Amino acid sequence: MHPLLEKKGFILDVDGVIGRGDKPIPQAVDAVNRLIEMGKKVVFVSNNSTRSRKIYMQRFKEFGVKIDEDQMFLTTYVTANHIKRTYGEAKVFTTGEPGLVEELELAGHEIVDYTEAEILVVGSNRGINFEILTKALRMCLDRSKIYIATNPDKVFPSEDGPVPGTGMLIGALYWMTDRMPDCICGKPERVIMEQALDYLELRPEDVVVVGDQIDVDVLAGKKIGSETLLVLSGVTTKENLNRMVEKFNAKPDFILEDLSELFR
Amino acid sequence: MHPLLEKKGFILDVDGVIGRGDKPIPQAVDAVNRLIEMGKKVVFVSNNSTRSRKIYMQRFKEFGVKIDEDQMFLTTYVTANHIKRTYGEAKVFTTGEPGLVEELELAGHEIVDYTEAEILVVGSNRGINFEILTKALRMCLDRSKIYIATNPDKVFPSEDGPVPGTGMLIGALYWMTDRMPDCICGKPERVIMEQALDYLELRPEDVVVVGDQIDVDVLAGKKIGSETLLVLSGVTTKENLNRMVEKFNAKPDFILEDLSELFR
Repeated sequence: MHPLLEKKGFILDVDGVIGRGDKPIPQAVDAVNRLIEMGKKVVFVSNNSTRSRKIYMQRFKEFGVKIDEDQMFLTTYVTANHIKRTYGEAKVFTTGEPGLVEELELAGHEIVDYTEAEILVVGSNRGINFEILTKALRMCLDRSKIYIATNPDKVFPSEDGPVPGTGMLIGALYWMTDRMPDCICGKPERVIMEQALDYLELRPEDVVVVGDQIDVDVLAGKKIGSETLLVLSGVTTKENLNRMVEKFNAKPDFILEDLSELFR
Repeated sequence: MHPLLEKKGFILDVDGVIGRGDKPIPQAVDAVNRLIEMGKKVVFVSNNSTRSRKIYMQRFKEFGVKIDEDQMFLTTYVTANHIKRTYGEAKVFTTGEPGLVEELELAGHEIVDYTEAEILVVGSNRGINFEILTKALRMCLDRSKIYIATNPDKVFPSEDGPVPGTGMLIGALYWMTDRMPDCICGKPERVIMEQALDYLELRPEDVVVVGDQIDVDVLAGKKIGSETLLVLSGVTTKENLNRMVEKFNAKPDFILEDLSELFR
């Protein structure tokens, strides 16, 4: 039996672990369902900043993963939740998409224009434009405003090639104002991982953090003091593994081809 | 007589020197016309990256400044000209506005989609969107492509408040790709200043560089070895002068309230 099967909890990345874009990795999906049947506590953590949990549940259903909405920690939800826990229900201006707006409103926040907002929430937006960028710039220049970002990803590897991630907006604002977010919620930062641990009600040593990216998932796991499992079913491959370990100066505790190898 | 009236040539900034936005500073306009009548050689250099010389001539006519189109060095024109001198007529993809496209085409360049382009030209665009940003990102990631930016200005002080300048795009691309432009054409860089000097057919010591910003105009003048005149009719004021000099660590050779003081 694989030693990681002694862990009580599994914190799993989505893309590159149980699917690639909207296509499932069937043997990895089976492995997740088997973990659940064994009584393991499972949550998913994703830096996706454009979709609500409601939208994402649809994908999980299609993949055939048997989990509930509250086992899903997307940065849309995590950010809304973080703001509520830290500042209470707030007046928010966001650069983000309807999926982020949905989670912010579900958490009780009010979406307002930038002049009335207390908090700027920066998240990726495929409908980004000059007006949104101008409003975010002006909020950043006002040091009395709180500035939160969903996730730090600079470039997202979409199916037809690289596209800008939320990090593009963080970089543009930093370049113009010398200001970085007061908090970034996504991996490899702590906020998303701590919300997942809280939900699991487990200690870091009782969970394993699983993902396909060293600079995102493995670093996030190390940050909370959990063991980490890198799967080679996504961004990191046999070919680039050594280069990635060196580049990001972080070594996963375990490496498997894909999640199903836990049971081989 | 003011000692600067012994110079043969005047390289003048536009905004904050002879006008503010689309409003002229009448006594400064009179001073420019007086310089021209005295036989001084005059050119204007502006970091404006969205307007062609043709569009700008209209503003100059309304201001009442008596100059020709070829005395006007906007970064739209300067960039198109720089590419032609350095690489010949080229296939170009640009993030920019119709004013930049117009100058690129006038110089003989062909505007193409990013996959066919040899050169990426980054200039500000009030119609910026995710698709343009994605294309610019992909060109930057391809180190075989040449990357030129019109001007480095991070934030532009528009009439209703700060808005992003071309520098926002440079910063966003740098954040995502670790790549800076192979050349930035606008002030305080040399390209625009050298094109102005070439046109004047004068040595740096025979011209004065006039502007309202220490980090833009005064630094540009120092870079080519000319004397500099700071006018307090724009961004720099009596109140912030000392702070600006200290911040940018550059002292203008002369300081006047506005250009008309040359004749007082």
